Amino acid sequence: MSARPDSAPVRIARYTEADLFVFCTAALAAAGADAETAEAAGRAMLHGSRLGVDSHGVRLLDHYVTVIAGGRVKGHPEMRFVRRLGAVATLDADDGHGARAAYYAMDHAMAAAEQFGIGAVAIRNSSHFGPAGAYALAAAERGFVGLAFCNSDSFVRLHAGAERFHGTNPIAAAAPVDGGRPWLFDMATSAIPYNRVLLYGSLGRALPPETASDVEGVDTRDASLVEMLAPLGGAFGFKGAGLAGLVELLSAVLSGARLSFDIPPMGGPDYATARNVGAFVLALQPSAFLEPEAFQAGLARYLAVLRGSRPASGGEVMAPGDREWREAERRARSGIPIDPATALAFDRIADRFSIPRPRPLAG
Amino acid sequence: MSARPDSAPVRIARYTEADLFVFCTAALAAAGADAETAEAAGRAMLHGSRLGVDSHGVRLLDHYVTVIAGGRVKGHPEMRFVRRLGAVATLDADDGHGARAAYYAMDHAMAAAEQFGIGAVAIRNSSHFGPAGAYALAAAERGFVGLAFCNSDSFVRLHAGAERFHGTNPIAAAAPVDGGRPWLFDMATSAIPYNRVLLYGSLGRALPPETASDVEGVDTRDASLVEMLAPLGGAFGFKGAGLAGLVELLSAVLSGARLSFDIPPMGGPDYATARNVGAFVLALQPSAFLEPEAFQAGLARYLAVLRGSRPASGGEVMAPGDREWREAERRARSGIPIDPATALAFDRIADRFSIPRPRPLAG
Repeated sequence: MSARPDSAPVRIARYTEADLFVFCTAALAAAGADAETAEAAGRAMLHGSRLGVDSHGVRLLDHYVTVIAGGRVKGHPEMRFVRRLGAVATLDADDGHGARAAYYAMDHAMAAAEQFGIGAVAIRNSSHFGPAGAYALAAAERGFVGLAFCNSDSFVRLHAGAERFHGTNPIAAAAPVDGGRPWLFDMATSAIPYNRVLLYGSLGRALPPETASDVEGVDTRDASLVEMLAPLGGAFGFKGAGLAGLVELLSAVLSGARLSFDIPPMGGPDYATARNVGAFVLALQPSAFLEPEAFQAGLARYLAVLRGSRPASGGEVMAPGDREWREAERRARSGIPIDPATALAFDRIADRFSIPRPRPLAG
Repeated sequence: MSARPDSAPVRIARYTEADLFVFCTAALAAAGADAETAEAAGRAMLHGSRLGVDSHGVRLLDHYVTVIAGGRVKGHPEMRFVRRLGAVATLDADDGHGARAAYYAMDHAMAAAEQFGIGAVAIRNSSHFGPAGAYALAAAERGFVGLAFCNSDSFVRLHAGAERFHGTNPIAAAAPVDGGRPWLFDMATSAIPYNRVLLYGSLGRALPPETASDVEGVDTRDASLVEMLAPLGGAFGFKGAGLAGLVELLSAVLSGARLSFDIPPMGGPDYATARNVGAFVLALQPSAFLEPEAFQAGLARYLAVLRGSRPASGGEVMAPGDREWREAERRARSGIPIDPATALAFDRIADRFSIPRPRPLAG
């Protein structure tokens, strides 16, 4: 979810997706990334920026430059499958960029799904991979149902817990829709995204109930007191915590990666040491289960009935991804807005590596 | 979650698991079920009753007798795989009992996971399968990570929606733990179970916030006004709705089963017509991804740190399944409590089929 900086009073410059991609890949290459890494990280960031998920968009470029230049993330990793059986494998990402690992793993999962109907890859020795939805979408764009998970440094308490335990451990899924945009679902297993906490704080608004907790694990609606996020589910927070646990099990236990609570903070101060983040991707070939026409007819009917479902007063019923695809159309027309802090980071990066800064759109 | 009838003032009789299983299978056979169906449905119900999930325990026997005798569920189905590729298949359950279909499908998924590292089966023309956790657990008991999903007749609104759309569409997962009970997670994608709404109503207590809605889709804390359940997530209910959608996609779209909103009500009045409920099961072989010792070491550490995590004041931190396994130990010692309505149904069923009624434990 984006903080929608374009509604702030300051002037927000907009850029084309192509220009941002060129700048991101040039910056990553200058920081020490090989071509595959730069391309994968750029593609993942632009997924976020294109769809309006700005927290996982090109805002991350500054971080990625820092961790590649700092040595935490290897610019030239040698990723390899360390274990394979039939339709599954474990990828050792060699401390490379998480986006490169996840796209590579999903390619392997899709090849397996082509042959066996399903394929899955667990990933270890990886790093922050940005928007989980990017990898699920990569599968849907090639006709598969895709799933993607990852763990991350602890920030979410357990149900009835009073310390950070799981990462925000996202679950993403996507499915191909004939003649339309993919069904695209991407959620953190926390009750609220942290950037939303920051947004509510800066606006002076109370947080939604049961979404974040103070240092004692007691839920608070005061953003300034937030020390950890609550698991999804409120009074039934065991659900969010259990989903985070499922993600942890697939991404870290099954892959041999670090558990969330053993991963050093994404935000440093150490940007030189690898973190061994885990991830898990899965692809299903619909035609292995059902005639393709029947699958598409069922999905089309599901989406049509969903979008025609009666809305609550003042609300709008949408399928997962509808909001994001709508935003993507807006941004394709009028450009991708870049918040002031990210714009300043662009200036610094362009200076540091003597590469051309992208030019904002006129108007 | 059980309504814990044993805390009510009325006298609650207790029974052994073995006696309940004998009675359930005898009743199902008398109603027209073949041996496999009776055994599978009995096993699934006892999963619920053993673990304290009484809403999905032997309370369901009366319903299952009704639907088998009524013809909605075939007592002698001819289940067959209608599509297979590598590690996946689609099972046509021939309008048989959902428990038989799900155990059968999970057996197939485990055989595939043995060979390919992963296996999945989509199920159509099935029926109510009871506790989703039973099928995930069946995989964990044999050393696999198991997942089970199903759809069901509509009862949960969409995010910002004002009518019933998804079923409670559960997600269950289980993993084998060396020297301990499996990690066992089983949740509905609704914000609250309906039987909990009924319990709060009968106790005159206000529902937890943002869990259930009135006829206009507006959240209410008055159980008597509840017309539909809210999706998990409160202000972020798109998460619960999206998870329900993922379950729908795997269980119904991929299998060719009916979508939730097309499934006639579980509760009749028509008990003669098949409903074509869908489900989906998946098994992963941990050793295909990682050395078994490393997998178990990671899982053990995850669980140890989780159980030692700092609790909030007055709370207790538990892993998924811990509460249920603890209850199972209690029930193994002192018997399985049967609520008065279910006890009366036992009387009726025993009379109807002239089979011996189970005898309560003394004391």
